[in-house]
Amino acid sequence: METLSIGQYDLIYNAFSFGFATLAAATLFFWLGIGQVKSQYKTALVVTGLVTFIAAYHYWRIGQSWSDAYTLVDGVHVPTEMAFNSAYRYVDWLLTVPLLLVELILVMSLSRSETVSRATSLGLAALLMVALGYPGEVSDSNNTRWIFGLLSMVPFLWIVYQLYAGLGRAIESQPESARGLVRLARNVTVGSWCFYPVVYFAGAVGLEGATATVVVEVGYTIADIIAKAGFGVLIFLIAMRKSEDLANVGGAKVVPAE
Amino acid sequence: METLSIGQYDLIYNAFSFGFATLAAATLFFWLGIGQVKSQYKTALVVTGLVTFIAAYHYWRIGQSWSDAYTLVDGVHVPTEMAFNSAYRYVDWLLTVPLLLVELILVMSLSRSETVSRATSLGLAALLMVALGYPGEVSDSNNTRWIFGLLSMVPFLWIVYQLYAGLGRAIESQPESARGLVRLARNVTVGSWCFYPVVYFAGAVGLEGATATVVVEVGYTIADIIAKAGFGVLIFLIAMRKSEDLANVGGAKVVPAE
Repeated sequence: METLSIGQYDLIYNAFSFGFATLAAATLFFWLGIGQVKSQYKTALVVTGLVTFIAAYHYWRIGQSWSDAYTLVDGVHVPTEMAFNSAYRYVDWLLTVPLLLVELILVMSLSRSETVSRATSLGLAALLMVALGYPGEVSDSNNTRWIFGLLSMVPFLWIVYQLYAGLGRAIESQPESARGLVRLARNVTVGSWCFYPVVYFAGAVGLEGATATVVVEVGYTIADIIAKAGFGVLIFLIAMRKSEDLANVGGAKVVPAE
Repeated sequence: METLSIGQYDLIYNAFSFGFATLAAATLFFWLGIGQVKSQYKTALVVTGLVTFIAAYHYWRIGQSWSDAYTLVDGVHVPTEMAFNSAYRYVDWLLTVPLLLVELILVMSLSRSETVSRATSLGLAALLMVALGYPGEVSDSNNTRWIFGLLSMVPFLWIVYQLYAGLGRAIESQPESARGLVRLARNVTVGSWCFYPVVYFAGAVGLEGATATVVVEVGYTIADIIAKAGFGVLIFLIAMRKSEDLANVGGAKVVPAE
């Protein structure tokens, strides 16, 4: 832990508060929308809100831990004895990253057996990916960071492959009105997840000191907001779009009289 | 209470936070799903969420008590005057363990008289099991731990017998689509409950000091998550599966036209 300027400390503190506010608001948005979608998409919205709920809880805790980890002395923030608890992020990801893949699979409403098998295999790969990253994150050695970072990339690449190969076919059989959004949600997953290894390896390529702390903490916060709240909005739109399609089946759509 | 390294203290602290987040998220998942099941299964989901709600509350309190019980001195965590309150676990189990059995019975939707008699006898046995364990848990004497631990096993074995013998017949008469899941839920109950005596007796077979504290606290947390949140997901799936069956009765399922 290194000394931070007031500006650096405040930027991170405010990023955490922004993260909490965005994720808590997103949670309420998803859950308040459950009544608007057809029954087969309700669980997808419940899970979407669970992800942002769990993340909001952790941003609240992260903000508290940040306050405890520094004290203002002579115009700069110096570390206290209470180290900043970066494990909150990994505990959060252990829960939320598998659930993010479950969201995507649920909103696709595949057959029961395909839902179970894809959710299980992708969820376990995501769990492995997060668990392998942690020993590198907390290590002081750059070598350890590289080794566990690269190990963690193996399940990550397998997930990317699955999302484009196996799930790709299922995406192409989605109803036309929602297909573009499902494809976008898949791409946002992969794109936003690519941001995490960039932040992770920023510490291993010589970026260090106060600047590294700012890049890592603000970077992870932005990635979390996009991957959870932003991705969740896409899941919500897909569920709404597909529910509208169902309402239109057989020309039975109720329209207001002219 | 013994001195803990920063790593040991943090592992337990983070396990408690993980427990809280998982159990709180599970509670919301179960309660938000109430609208998706038929009326005869709604109470089962209400109770499932009550169990994880009560447990989430206790994990919150346990985390606070843990923070108060140690203070950082020269890079190690030493016990303060405020002892860690392990009674929170037993207070939790007194409420939640009988309710876990009630969940399982409710989701089976047996006759009213069978529901009442089985819920009462299994619930009272569970209460007795938890109450008998407590004097051993708080005792410094290994003998006392063994005596109350073994006494507590008597109602435990009676519950296991009931779940396989008496309730076994009722399980085999569940609708085919849900029978496998009900059997699994019964087995998860027995399997995850077996973990508690292992942790309990870990203290009586010579495992002591800081390592014992880590094994006991992390072990109980994992067992609680599996026995309450994991088991609850099975109850949710059973309720959903049986509700779908009801919706399909008489071929009245609404499907979108081709």
